[in-house]
Formats: sequence, structure tokens, C-alpha cells
Amino acid sequence: MTIRAAVMTEPHAAMEIWSLDDPPIEEGGVLLETVASEVCGTDVHLHRGHLADVPYPIVPGHVSVGRVVESRGVDADITGSPLAGGDLVTFYDVHEVCGVCWHCIVAGQPNRCANRRVYGITYSADDGPLGGWAERIYLKPGVKILKLPESLTADDVIGGGCGLFTGFAAVERSGLQMADTVVVQGAGPVGLSTAAFSALRGAALTIVIGAPGDRLALARHLGADVTLSLEGMELGERQAAVLELTGGRGADTVIEASGNPAAIPEGFELLRDGGTYVVAGHYTDAGDVELNPHLAINRKHAQVRGQWGTEFRHVIRALKMLAKHRDRLSFSRVIGKRYGLGETDAALEDIAALRVPKAVIVP
Amino acid sequence: MTIRAAVMTEPHAAMEIWSLDDPPIEEGGVLLETVASEVCGTDVHLHRGHLADVPYPIVPGHVSVGRVVESRGVDADITGSPLAGGDLVTFYDVHEVCGVCWHCIVAGQPNRCANRRVYGITYSADDGPLGGWAERIYLKPGVKILKLPESLTADDVIGGGCGLFTGFAAVERSGLQMADTVVVQGAGPVGLSTAAFSALRGAALTIVIGAPGDRLALARHLGADVTLSLEGMELGERQAAVLELTGGRGADTVIEASGNPAAIPEGFELLRDGGTYVVAGHYTDAGDVELNPHLAINRKHAQVRGQWGTEFRHVIRALKMLAKHRDRLSFSRVIGKRYGLGETDAALEDIAALRVPKAVIVP
Amino acid sequence: MTIRAAVMTEPHAAMEIWSLDDPPIEEGGVLLETVASEVCGTDVHLHRGHLADVPYPIVPGHVSVGRVVESRGVDADITGSPLAGGDLVTFYDVHEVCGVCWHCIVAGQPNRCANRRVYGITYSADDGPLGGWAERIYLKPGVKILKLPESLTADDVIGGGCGLFTGFAAVERSGLQMADTVVVQGAGPVGLSTAAFSALRGAALTIVIGAPGDRLALARHLGADVTLSLEGMELGERQAAVLELTGGRGADTVIEASGNPAAIPEGFELLRDGGTYVVAGHYTDAGDVELNPHLAINRKHAQVRGQWGTEFRHVIRALKMLAKHRDRLSFSRVIGKRYGLGETDAALEDIAALRVPKAVIVP
Amino acid sequence: MTIRAAVMTEPHAAMEIWSLDDPPIEEGGVLLETVASEVCGTDVHLHRGHLADVPYPIVPGHVSVGRVVESRGVDADITGSPLAGGDLVTFYDVHEVCGVCWHCIVAGQPNRCANRRVYGITYSADDGPLGGWAERIYLKPGVKILKLPESLTADDVIGGGCGLFTGFAAVERSGLQMADTVVVQGAGPVGLSTAAFSALRGAALTIVIGAPGDRLALARHLGADVTLSLEGMELGERQAAVLELTGGRGADTVIEASGNPAAIPEGFELLRDGGTYVVAGHYTDAGDVELNPHLAINRKHAQVRGQWGTEFRHVIRALKMLAKHRDRLSFSRVIGKRYGLGETDAALEDIAALRVPKAVIVP
Repeated sequence: MTIRAAVMTEPHAAMEIWSLDDPPIEEGGVLLETVASEVCGTDVHLHRGHLADVPYPIVPGHVSVGRVVESRGVDADITGSPLAGGDLVTFYDVHEVCGVCWHCIVAGQPNRCANRRVYGITYSADDGPLGGWAERIYLKPGVKILKLPESLTADDVIGGGCGLFTGFAAVERSGLQMADTVVVQGAGPVGLSTAAFSALRGAALTIVIGAPGDRLALARHLGADVTLSLEGMELGERQAAVLELTGGRGADTVIEASGNPAAIPEGFELLRDGGTYVVAGHYTDAGDVELNPHLAINRKHAQVRGQWGTEFRHVIRALKMLAKHRDRLSFSRVIGKRYGLGETDAALEDIAALRVPKAVIVP
Repeated sequence: MTIRAAVMTEPHAAMEIWSLDDPPIEEGGVLLETVASEVCGTDVHLHRGHLADVPYPIVPGHVSVGRVVESRGVDADITGSPLAGGDLVTFYDVHEVCGVCWHCIVAGQPNRCANRRVYGITYSADDGPLGGWAERIYLKPGVKILKLPESLTADDVIGGGCGLFTGFAAVERSGLQMADTVVVQGAGPVGLSTAAFSALRGAALTIVIGAPGDRLALARHLGADVTLSLEGMELGERQAAVLELTGGRGADTVIEASGNPAAIPEGFELLRDGGTYVVAGHYTDAGDVELNPHLAINRKHAQVRGQWGTEFRHVIRALKMLAKHRDRLSFSRVIGKRYGLGETDAALEDIAALRVPKAVIVP
Repeated sequence: MTIRAAVMTEPHAAMEIWSLDDPPIEEGGVLLETVASEVCGTDVHLHRGHLADVPYPIVPGHVSVGRVVESRGVDADITGSPLAGGDLVTFYDVHEVCGVCWHCIVAGQPNRCANRRVYGITYSADDGPLGGWAERIYLKPGVKILKLPESLTADDVIGGGCGLFTGFAAVERSGLQMADTVVVQGAGPVGLSTAAFSALRGAALTIVIGAPGDRLALARHLGADVTLSLEGMELGERQAAVLELTGGRGADTVIEASGNPAAIPEGFELLRDGGTYVVAGHYTDAGDVELNPHLAINRKHAQVRGQWGTEFRHVIRALKMLAKHRDRLSFSRVIGKRYGLGETDAALEDIAALRVPKAVIVP
Repeated sequence: MTIRAAVMTEPHAAMEIWSLDDPPIEEGGVLLETVASEVCGTDVHLHRGHLADVPYPIVPGHVSVGRVVESRGVDADITGSPLAGGDLVTFYDVHEVCGVCWHCIVAGQPNRCANRRVYGITYSADDGPLGGWAERIYLKPGVKILKLPESLTADDVIGGGCGLFTGFAAVERSGLQMADTVVVQGAGPVGLSTAAFSALRGAALTIVIGAPGDRLALARHLGADVTLSLEGMELGERQAAVLELTGGRGADTVIEASGNPAAIPEGFELLRDGGTYVVAGHYTDAGDVELNPHLAINRKHAQVRGQWGTEFRHVIRALKMLAKHRDRLSFSRVIGKRYGLGETDAALEDIAALRVPKAVIVP
């Protein structure tokens, strides 16, 4: 049997449909039937050639949900829950870190391991169906599989997508104090998730700055207390609004989830003296910005923290929170449109143009 | 009796010598005979009018050493050590914080209290001899006085000056791990102190980048393991040198003590992924710089921390370390030149022109 | 005019009703008409003579809600909200810390300042109506006053009482990670508040161990996901239940809010390796317990943290959370019974006998 | 060829000399000629049968120094330094953690991984020469090897032994602030290392409590400022001495390195309010002790932290510090006696009886 997959053959090229051989299942390997995979900003970066060392042709799709079709010697997920054919699962896209480099074993920061292998990004299509934009996904031995709790649907998870985990990581990284005021810059998938987890983590006031209106409505639905529109307000008005909401001090915590360098100086303006600013919106070259570093950082006694990628703990913890708060958190509503394997070009364009908050590939 | 004092009447004006009335000693007040006071970058900022809300005319001199001349109802220093006439003391220049504002009581960051009163900066000469560039200094009730340990001379303390405490605070703020590699940007008083405390705090390798050569020699004397000259090396060479010293990764901790905005992008280049960058070199407007925030902060998974001012704990702890390590730490060698009360214009010019690392006023 | 007050003249003595003179209102002082004051475990300790240096006779009642009757020169609360006659307020019972001792200015732990002055505890009845079990309470200059948000009633606040703030502090101190499993030992006022804030702070699972059944029902109402009864289960059964709920590992975070020394070894049994245990249930001598310190602490790689008292930030932040989540958090339901000034002996007895979770004095 | 090894066949049995087959060198494996291996408290625990799941017969010796005899496909140590025959190396005794359990990937605490494989402890003699009490040691693929810096001798490292790394870990875990006062309980290998790293990490005052006198002399040599003898002083005297040295407050940080449960209540007495207590002296059942948990932990607002085992970062960082400060840190002086392979019974007895601070096996 063969597997239909959408393949990105090289940057800027039209997507192609390939037929990949069904892979042999190794001891410890699992084959999934893809239920849904996501299109995120990283896929656009991949298509534009912004990431280094990508082994094109690739099968994109790093966060996915699937059903177990076949497995060898795997009878439980990573938490020990029994795993059987037909079970709905997701998995951690970072398949491997080296475990022997300085970042892995001295710094305790495996997210900066130079040898990470990531589904949908660092594998070639020649290696097999190792991305989610395919009818089936092969999970190599050691891939960390999580069975979805019964209360969660595939749409709940994929509607959050990788942004769900990035937003979780950004909120964790902020170390926000209970009853803090939090400003989230951006209302895309990362911003929406950040707002949701900010509220669940104990913020007394979560303010989202973004556009367009329907995303702000989603933000409020997911937990934001106040939204400020980039379309309807000037920078000065937004700043005035934040100051008024914070006793004139600015926000305790600001989390940048916009990917726009221009958001950075604005973020410092919105941050109170002594506050914490998490920069999580982008990790490739989105351009430079002018900044007065001594006023922004030193005089403000600020803390600024980047959050690169996610670790497995973010995934498992985010899904636990999603399951606990499923009544309030309907990330399925973030899904803007579904695309077949033959429509991935359109999906990439829609995401690049911000036409949909979350595009989902349904093979 | 009257007190001769050097008075800064307004920004850019020549310094004047005034005769101030000897102040009445309140209950809890102490009068000091000034032994030495320092000239630091802040005094240059004051002279250039860079700080807001300064009540000119002022008697500059925030960090000073003096001998107790007279006191009312004060028989011990802040640690409980007996205090008597003739004792050599220093004191914390931040006389008061309000204790009721949000930064004082909610954030636990009194250094950002808007109502701080600081010797040599926020008092007018009309309020009395409340700065160190005067024959005598009046310590109002509540000023935190520290008797110098017997092993320390006035020169040991004033040679470090406020930079001693700022450097201590910067190193504390970095949270550096034992055996880290630390890069210090700048070899002025703050940079020298930062290098000294970096070594005492357990860095395995402390690298100072600065100029000129005699300051780098001081840095090595005070604890730096390696110095890289701004004069003799291009940016690329400095970066290559740091990479070679750090197994190709960059430094675990970078501390900016230069006050130069251009140091910031260089600092990020020298920082390893996942490292910590403390920005402590300036707190007024030193100008803008171009920065790629997503590459510098997010992709690097960096932590960036400003350190505004010092708190009393920095002062008492820094002096304890100075006393313990007096054999190794001769900050008296940092003193470039001594100036009488009539020579403070020259002192300001020498500091502004970086002609001396530390200028000391001896009234 | 005079003020009727319930006075504890000495340990073990019956409470007396005294008439205190109406105090002169100093500049910065505020007189409140008492709406409600609480009876908590500390009041029982006071009545049993367990605290040192208490200046009997005293007017107990440290956490109270009142209405502004009169004030001099006070037109705003500590956050800057306008304050007028008739406004409903509460205040931070710790009136003063010294601001010059080592714990205040070096350790940054004013809660361990030896010179704290606390309403209802460290003031004598001879000093005036400085406790809540009186018709009126005099707030001296500098007392930190908080106007209740319009959405909160006096019962919302006093139903939580000081336990509201202690529970908040215990959860903050735990540093719990989002999606952690938390075990709370105890279902009294501190335990209930701890459970509520645990849930609001992002725990995925909050388990309360306590008794009797109606308190456990309150715990579930306030946010606990699971309750285990001290009455119906043996220690081994409770441990088995916690292990089953935590994948066999034990809880990430355990918070002791029972005041029973025997809870401590049980707490360590319930804690996972590498977890955090906060001990917050008592601060006087509740007796010894046998512990294997190396197995409990070292082998477990545990963190154990005491939380002594509360700081103002806990009060203001807890009230913010209460206001935000008023729909879910009805601490008014914790109030077991109301007592007049003449019934304070009964109130003390009911609290000591655990007959009511929260006793409220309504003068 | 065969390898002579000292084998612990079962608890309490006399040690035997066995001849083990020279192992085949796998790809990635390295064979060392043993230069020195240590005898530590863990070896005594092993001999007394205190540890669970030990696959007797075993070749003890977890920390060792050796010379490279042969290797396959290994041309660099874990830091990338070239590795050749004859090079002097040490290695991290924890050969493997599973990388998929909850402690490994969610908690980020691989030291609590249930599947750790450790040289000298979790391998049977039937698995080969996988402990240091043998003429040669086989390092399986993946063992983390560190070439000794040229400035360090085998005695420098083995004189510290595993205590060197445990002491480093304990100091790191304490998070001590620069200029803190530190009390170290115990003057065995862990205590001595703790004292040394406490001083290097920036303590202003390091006090060691222990016995006998020659160990206290070693402690002073390695960095302790003050030593208090268990033999010459009663508990009350020791406490009085610590209070006098700390302005009446007690120590900021106490680190238990004695392994004696009775040290725990004493440690709390010596700790200041708000201080940090690290328990690192033992990890098996050393017995119970009576403790008043609410007074010791809650009223004191204390932090208590266990430190179980070491991670690789402790090893690499400790050796970096040892290399930097080799002039001051002569751990070779801690070596009390050397024993041949036929004398390991005597070595175990001498360690158990505290007759030597560090016993070294020289095969």
C-alpha cells in the first residue's frame, strides 16, 4: 500500500502530492492514520526558505492527531495509559535530542540542542511519512505518544495546534504572579493560547492587543478580560488604555506573541517598572527594530525572557489543562478552515495572509 | 560654624563654593566630617541635566566616607555595632523610600519607588549639607550607617564607590551558576567591580572587554581571568576570542557595564543560547540601537535583566565581601586622582573624558 | 462617646465587655464602624496564652471589615481609590514593620521583622480600639486600607478571613507549576482558601484531605476536584488514593494547612520525589513528631517551605482574585455562625472545638 | 587477558578477588586502566545491604580515575577535547537515565529516574568490569568521559571523590547569596567539599561543625573560616558560637553533610528565620528523629531542600572549579590511606569507623 502525502519539494515551489511507501514498522514503532494536522507559521517559514538545514523535499505538519493503525511492541502511551488500535493520539514533534551535548546535559536546556529531530521539519520525505500532511504518519521508536483524554476531540487539540504549547510555554516562562495584570501582544494561535493560559494561571486581568475583531472575540471567549484592537486604536491610545487599567503603572507581565519586531518597543512601553516581558512571537529573522536598551531594560529594572520552542512537559501539561477546562476552552472554534491534501498551497496562503487563525489539513 | 561645600547650581554651570550653615542635629541625626566622596557618572549626568526633577542647587556626592563628629541618640550603626565619635563610616545614599507605594509593598521592588530620597541627588543645597562634596555631611534620622570594618580604609571603599555596589547588584541579578563563563562589557568602576564579584561568586572564567590598557590591568588585578581590548581588537575578533574560550557556545552570562548602546547587540552575539544578559551600564537616555529582537532574545532563549540602582542589601553585602577579601581586592588602586573642593569642575571633566577610572573628592 | 469592646484580659479568663474612649483622630488616622470581625485559630492561641509578649488586656480581632466613620487627611485607600465616609473597607492587620532591621532591609523578609505591630494581637486595650471585636476600630496613620471592590460584600471577605490570605500565601510560596497535582492537608479556613487558590493558580488536580463532610463539601464548592475524608479512610487508604490519582508518583505539591504535627510524615508520604511541600498550618508549638529526615527530604529530593504570616501583597492580590472570581468563590458560605460582642467566649469555644469553620463577630 | 577485581559477593561477606574476562570493546566503548578509585559511604551501605535492588555480586567503585587503554570510535571526551591512549580521565558514574519517564521528561529531575544505571552500584560483576575496584574499567558506549585538565592530578580528583560532586551539588542547591553566612554540618568528604565550594561561591563566612581535629584542619585549609568541634563543645555552646558569629540571628544557610539524623534539629536551631537548610548527608535509612515541624519550618519561614545524588553538570562544573582554584584546593590532602585490591575489607572498615576521611583503592 502507499501513502498519499503533500510534499514541499523546495522553498517557493508549489506543493506536490507524492505516494510514499508504507514504512516497515520497527519494534517500538507505531503507524497512525492521520485525523488532522495543522498549518502554522513555521510551515510558511519553511515554504519561504527561512529555516536553515531543512532537508527538502519534506512532508510538513509537525503537530497532528491520528488514530493508531498498527504498532509493534507498544502497548501504552508515555504516561502508561494502555494504547490500542483505533485510539486517538497526538505526539511530541521533537523526536529526539542528543542527550550528550552541553545544552542537553549541562545547561538543562534540551530545547537548544543542536541535534533535535522534529517531525514535519527535519526529516526528508525520502525518510518516510514523518510529517502530518499525509494519510498516515509513522512514529519511530521513542516518539512520545499521548492518548487524548476521552473528553477531548481531535479538533480541540488541533485547533490549538503548536500554538497551544507555545502559549503554554510562554506563560510558564513568564513566571507570572497570581493576580498579575498580563498584556498579550497578538491574537493569532500563540496569542490566543497565551491569553487562555494566562487566565488559567491566575492573572487577575488579561489584556489582548490584536486584530481583527473576530480574533479578539475568540480571545475573550478563551479567557481574555479586555481586548484592544490594533485596527481601531493608535499606539498612544493602547498605551493609555493599559495604563488606566493598571493604576498608571503598566502591566506586570507582557507576552509578545505577534512576531512583529515593532511590537517590542510598544511592549516595553506597556510594561511596568520591574515587570517581566516574554518574547515568544517569532524565532527566525523578522527584522530589526530601534530600541533604547538602557531606558527599556535597565531603568525599568525589567526582566526579558525569550522562549524558544517547547519541551515535552509543555505538551503534556497543556493537554492536562485543556482536558480539565474543556468546558471553557473550545480551541476547536479557532479552526478557520479545513483543507484536503490537494489544497495545501491554499492553506499556506491563507495562513500567510492571516485570513484564518488556524488552518487544518484533513488528509 | 559654617561648612564649605561644592555646589552645582544648575546644569552646565561652573561649580561654586558655598558656605552652608552647620545643621542642627535632630534626635537620631549624625554629623560626619567628610573623609572622601566620589565623582561618578551620575554626577556627570547631573551636570548635564540628564536627570529629571533635580532640585538645583545641589551638593553632589552620593557615596562618601566620613568620621562621626557629633550625633544625637545614635550609639550603634545599622548592624548594631557600637558607634562613637571618630569612627569611620559610610552610609546608604538612598535615605528613604515611601513604604506605601505599589513598588514598595506589592512588588517588593523599593528601588523603583517614585519617592526615593537620595543624598547628593534629590536634596537641595538649601536643605543642608546632604551630599558628600562638602566638609561635613549631615545624616538625617534614619539614614543607614555602616561602620567600616577595621580592616578597610576609606580608600578601599571610595575607590570602589557606587560602582562597587552596582557591580555587586549586577552580579547578584545575573544569578550566575558556579563555574559559569562571564563576559563583562566595560572596564570602568562598574565593570571592574562586576569582574571582581563575578570571580568571587564562583565564575570559572571572567572575561572583561574594555579599554584602555591600564583599566584592563586593573581588571586582571581584581579578578578577571582574560581581558580583551576594545582598542586592539575588532568586534569580530572579540567575538571569535569569546567563542574560542567557551567551546564555541558563547558566554553563560554577559553583564553590560559600559553604558554604550552599541554594546547591546555585541553582548547578544557573545551570549550563549539559553544564557543570561544583565544590562547595568546606564539608566538615562544613552541613545537607541538597532536590534533583531526575535533572533537575539527568542531564538536564543535568552534571559535579559535590567538592574536599576542598588538596595541596601547590596551595600552591606558588598562591604562584607570587600572586608573578607581585602588582600585580593584593592579598590584603592582604582582611584585615579584626588581633588579638593575647588577642583570639582576638573573632576567632572576628567570623569566625563574617561581620563581617570575613579575621581575622589577630598574636602 | 464610648466604644464597646470585647476584651481578653488575660489567658484563660472569661472575655469582658469594656467601654473604651473614642480615640482622637490623628492626621492620617481613620475611624471605622465595625461591620464584621473574625475569630480564628490565632485568637484561640491568644486565649490559651500560646503567644509570647502579648500585652493583655487586648481587643482581639485582626482581620475585620468596617465602614469609614471619620478620617483626617485620608482621601484615598492604599491603591489610590477615593475613600469617603460610609465606604466599606478592610485593612492589613500588620500595622508596622521597623524598616531598619536585618530581616526588613537585608533579607527582604519583613514578615520576620521582630518589631511588627499587629491589630488585635500586639496592642493593649489601653492603647485604644485596635482590634476588631469592638464597635469601632481606630486605624492609626499608616495602616494600609483597602476599599472593597463593589462586587464584594463584607461576608465574602470575612468568610475567608485571615485564612484567605494565609492560603493565598501558601499557594504562592509553593511555586506550583501549571497542571500540577496538589494535595491540601486540612479543610479549615486555611485549607479551604489553599484549595481555592490552588485551582485558580492552575493546578490540574486539587485534592483536599480533611473532615468533617460539610467542610469537604465546601472545599469542592471552592475548587477542590477530589476530597478524601479523614473520618472515612485510614492513612494507607488515603495514600493509595493519592498514588492512584498521580500515576503512582505522589503529588507534585503538598500544602499542610492542618496544624497537626502528625500530618507532616503523612505529607511526605503523599509527595512525589522532587516535589514541594509547604508547611503553613501552624506557627506556635503544636508538638513534636517522629520523622526520618534523610528519607523524607534528601532521598526524595524534596523542597520544604514554611510560610510564616502574610505580607501586604498577599492581601491585595487575594482580594483581587476574590473580586475576579466572585461567581465561583463564595467564602460567605464558610461562615458558620455569627456572634455578638457578648458571645465571644462561645465563639472561641466553637472555633477551638472545630464546630464551625469560620466564626464571625458582629458587634 | 583477565582483569583482577575486588568483588562484593553479597552483603556482609568478605570481599573476594575475582578474575574477570577482558570485555569486548563495542563501538563507542572505552577501556581504562584504573589509576585510583574511591571508597565512600555508599560502599559501606552496599556492604551492609542498605540499598535495594543491588545485583550482587558487584565490583564497587563508582568514582574513579583511569588512563585510556583502548577505545573504538571515541576520539574526544564529552566536551569535545581530543582523547587518546594514555590520557587521564574520569567519568560520570550514572551511565544512563531512561529519558522517557515522568521524572526525566516532565519534572526535569533525571536524578530521580527509576531506571538509572550506575557504575559500581547497579551492575553485576557478571556484566563485566563496571566498577572502579578493578585493574581495568570498561566504559560502555555513552558513558560521559571527562579528560582531566593538565593541571589536575588523579589524587586531586579522587581525594575529593564523589563527595566533591555531592558537596558542589549541595552548595548549588542552597542558592546561597553572596556574603551569606553558611554552616556546614559534618567534616567528612561531603562536608569538606561543601565548605570549599561555599567559600568559592561567595559566602562571607563558612563555619564547619565536625570532628575530629584533623578533619577540621582540612576544612580550614579548604576554605572554612571557622570550625567548631563536636568533641570539644556541647550543642548549646555550638549554637551560642553560631549566634555570636551571625549577629544573633543564626546562619543564612545551613548544609547538613553529616548523615546523622540528630544533626537535623540542631541545624534548624542554627538557621536564621527565613534561611535555607539543605539536607545532603545521607540518602538511606539513617533513623528517625523528633522534630517540631511547625516551629522549625513554618514559624522560621524556612526553606529546606534535599539534594539526591548528582547530575552531570555538577561533575563538569566541580572539576572546572577544582582546575581554576588548584592552588588553594588540595583535595589530595584528604586522602587518608591507599589500599590494594586485596585490602578492600580494611578500606571499608576504616571508612565505616571514620578512621580516614577518604580511602582510595589503587589496583
